[in-house]
Order: sequence, then structure tokens, then C-alpha cells
Amino acid sequence: SARRAMAAWARAVRGLLLDISGVLYDSGGDGGVPIAGSVEAVRRIKASGLKLQFCTNETQETREKFVKKLQGMGFDISVAEVTAPAPAACRILKEHGLRPHLLVHDDLVPEFAEIDKANPNCVVIGDAAENFTYANLNEAFRILIEMEKPVLISLGRGRYYKETDGLKLDVGAYMKALEYACDVQAEVVGKPAKTFFESALAELGVPAQQAIMIGDDIVNDVGGAQRCGMRALQVRTGKYRPSDENHPHVKPDAYVNNLAEAVDILLQQL
Amino acid sequence: SARRAMAAWARAVRGLLLDISGVLYDSGGDGGVPIAGSVEAVRRIKASGLKLQFCTNETQETREKFVKKLQGMGFDISVAEVTAPAPAACRILKEHGLRPHLLVHDDLVPEFAEIDKANPNCVVIGDAAENFTYANLNEAFRILIEMEKPVLISLGRGRYYKETDGLKLDVGAYMKALEYACDVQAEVVGKPAKTFFESALAELGVPAQQAIMIGDDIVNDVGGAQRCGMRALQVRTGKYRPSDENHPHVKPDAYVNNLAEAVDILLQQL
Repeated sequence: SARRAMAAWARAVRGLLLDISGVLYDSGGDGGVPIAGSVEAVRRIKASGLKLQFCTNETQETREKFVKKLQGMGFDISVAEVTAPAPAACRILKEHGLRPHLLVHDDLVPEFAEIDKANPNCVVIGDAAENFTYANLNEAFRILIEMEKPVLISLGRGRYYKETDGLKLDVGAYMKALEYACDVQAEVVGKPAKTFFESALAELGVPAQQAIMIGDDIVNDVGGAQRCGMRALQVRTGKYRPSDENHPHVKPDAYVNNLAEAVDILLQQL
Repeated sequence: SARRAMAAWARAVRGLLLDISGVLYDSGGDGGVPIAGSVEAVRRIKASGLKLQFCTNETQETREKFVKKLQGMGFDISVAEVTAPAPAACRILKEHGLRPHLLVHDDLVPEFAEIDKANPNCVVIGDAAENFTYANLNEAFRILIEMEKPVLISLGRGRYYKETDGLKLDVGAYMKALEYACDVQAEVVGKPAKTFFESALAELGVPAQQAIMIGDDIVNDVGGAQRCGMRALQVRTGKYRPSDENHPHVKPDAYVNNLAEAVDILLQQL
């Protein structure tokens, strides 16, 4: 059981990184619905004195809009508590003097408001959804192929995700299309990139050995966090599938039925 | 020079496989234009008694329509002389009892008229151009991911091509997107697949050792043909780029400025 698996180390935990989609709530066309027990679980973490940071690959809207939606569901969450790919990408763009051509969702564009986008010398791709048109993909491709050394930055590398009306191709599939056409390897910003988890840990203020990641994605959440020296739990909510428990490379430190169960076990050890 | 490079073996050539786009003509929105000297070069090959077969990855229209367009430019060419991916795919579909979901150009659909497409158990992807919409890609993806063992057949694996209004992503890029999302490897029908060159050689009626391939694509034409035991020339027309001459893996048996020069040299040796 999760309780037994966590007994040896749960007492040492000082901080939590929480994935959002599939852990706090299930997304969908109507904004989504909270997962049972998660609103209360976040409140209990905060009351306990454990440190907390949210760590998401969400790129369909700005953090402001995203956080407002979650607050509307009852979650105690603020923009400063959310580590997301777009702000991380902005830091990289500024550091390297990169001017992006954006192939992203319309609602994400404001995250790049302060970035110079004239005469682009790189392409940033996010989960552009309806913006993944034939014309927009050709345009991003032409900008890349005309560079002496194409620079492609991808906000995540997910294969697909589930919405209320079915499965959708995620940014990773389109990233692969551009990588192949331009014979280039994208720099991935977001989970499972090590630097992304390291920023989240820095904002959490707890060393990797004393932090745990809780997520529904066996590769991007669990595998990525473990490669950074963290322990990681997989919840059996969101995109979790029973076949994840036979994953050839990644084994979570424990499985929990949902966030509420993970918090129950952790708080009993304090 | 090409003449010197070909001197040792040109006399042994009994048949030619010719790529079409970039060798006979340059494609474009208005139907395209013949490459200087190519109409006459095809006529001279036929008059010489050398065997001739055309070998193309064209999948934006049926062979009937494609051949009619080329005849309109003055080329002596018939449907039976053209080896193309769609008919080759139809043979595979029939042999394996596969019922395709088609993600192809509207004008290619008639090639699949006699194929059962009810309850699809595979996906066939071609250069769908404007049909590469977000909705169509998600649909093809969902059909694949719901199969116990997804079967994806790709009509070519080109990275991109050039039209009068600029570069366009080719079928290979979209093939890679679906491969990644579904964790599957596509079966490629068309150049550079060995079985495709072998069918073209069978239709040519000449063994590989006595045949040459002439094309503008260093990897799919030249590399593919050489792996089948043929000699291969690259023309400096179509998508040829000077950087092709430093390709890390593929070295043509000779470079020629265009099809007319290749034919001049070959016919002088007879």
C-alpha cells in the first residue's frame, strides 16, 4: 500500500510540487471540474506548514487566467505559486537575446508581452490547439529553415491529452514534425526538463531530497522529478492508466488513489 | 566532370528510372513549367531503345490527372509508365486485408476507389496539403491510438518541398507527428523504400545493375536507388542545393546539370 511504501521517508518531506491538470482538476471545454477531495487537500497542505509550489505544463492560457479559473473552483492558489513553461521560456529568450516567432494559443500570447518579437531568430511552440493550421505550421517551418542554425523552443513535449470531447494531439507531436523537417532538436522548456524542475524547487525553497512531486503523468511528472533527485507519487486520476504501473523505465515511489490520499498519509507522519 | 565519372559504366546502362518533379518540370500553383531540355530528353531516350520508367512520390493527384498535366507540357508519357505510391499502397492494403482511413489530398482519393474503407483498421497518410488541418490530424490520431497495434502507412517520407509561393512541409513531417503521438513506426510506401524501387525495376524490365536512377533528391532518389544496387545521378535542378554535394552519407555516381546533359552523355556511349 501507499502508506507502507511511504513510511520510510514521508517524515523527511518538507515541501511538495503539485501538478495541476489531472491532480487538482480535470480540464474540459466548460472550464473543467475539481477532482474530489483536492480543494480540501490543498488547504490542509498550507495549514500544515509544508511548503507548496504548483508545477504545470499548461500553455493554453496565461497563468493569471488559469489561476483565476482554479480559484473559481475553490482552490487556494496564487500566480506566484505556479511554475509554468511560458515564464521560464521568457527568461531563456532574454538571457540569449532571442526574438521568438510564436506558434502558441492566442490566450498565451500576453505572457510574451515584454519580449521583442521583431525579426525573429527562433520559434517558440506551445499547445496552440486551433492555431495548429497548415498555414501556421508552414510559416513556423519557413522561419526555422531559413536560419543558419535553427532554434526551436518547445513548451513541453507531451504526446496527447484528453478533453471532454476526446483525445487531442499535444505540442510534442508538432514539435517532432518541425524537428524532422528542419533536422534540428528542440529545447524543451517545462516538465520533464531538469532545469524546469530545478526552478520549481528554487521557488519551493526546499532541496530535492526533501521534496516530492505529485502528478498523473508517469514520464513527465514522475520520471522527470526522479531524475532531479526527488521522490515522486503518481495519482490514479487524470490521464493515469492502469498500464502505467507496468512502465518499462519509470517506477513511482508510491501510487496513491488521489491527492487527498497522498496528503492524508503525509500529514499523519508529521 | 559527369562525362568522365560515367565513362566506365555508361555503356552498360539498359534502362532509366526518372524522377518527375524537379527533373522533368518544376511544380507550382499554376501547374508548373517544364525544365529546359527535358521534353526533348524524354523523346531521345525513347527513340534510343533504352527502357524507361518514371518513379515519383507524387501524391497530390491521381496518376491520370498528373500524366495529363505532363502531356499538356509536351512530355511523351503514359499512366502505365509511372510508378507512384498510391497504387503501391493499394496492393499492400489488399494483400493484408487493411481498410484505410485516408488522410490524403482530395484529388488522390479516386486512386483508392476500389478499396474497402469501412471500419478502418489502419491510417494512410499522403501529402494532404490543405487537408492537414488540426481536426483531421486529431481524427487520424484517435483512430490510430484506439487500435491495439496501430498501423500507419505513409506515402513517402519527404521533409519539405518547394512551390512557387514558398517551402511547404511534406508528408514526412506529419508522419513523424503521428509516429511520436502513437509510439509507432510508419511503413513508408514510395521512395526511398527498397520494395518501391524493386517494383519500379520490375516494371522497367531491367536488373538493378543495368539501370540508373536520375533524381533531384539526394536521399530519397539517389540514396534509395543505390541501396537497391542501382547507379544514380543527381541533377542540379529542382530541390537540388549546392550543400547536397557535401552530404555526409550519400554520394551520387555523378552530378549532371540537368536531365538533358545526362541523356547526351548516355546516348554518346551507345
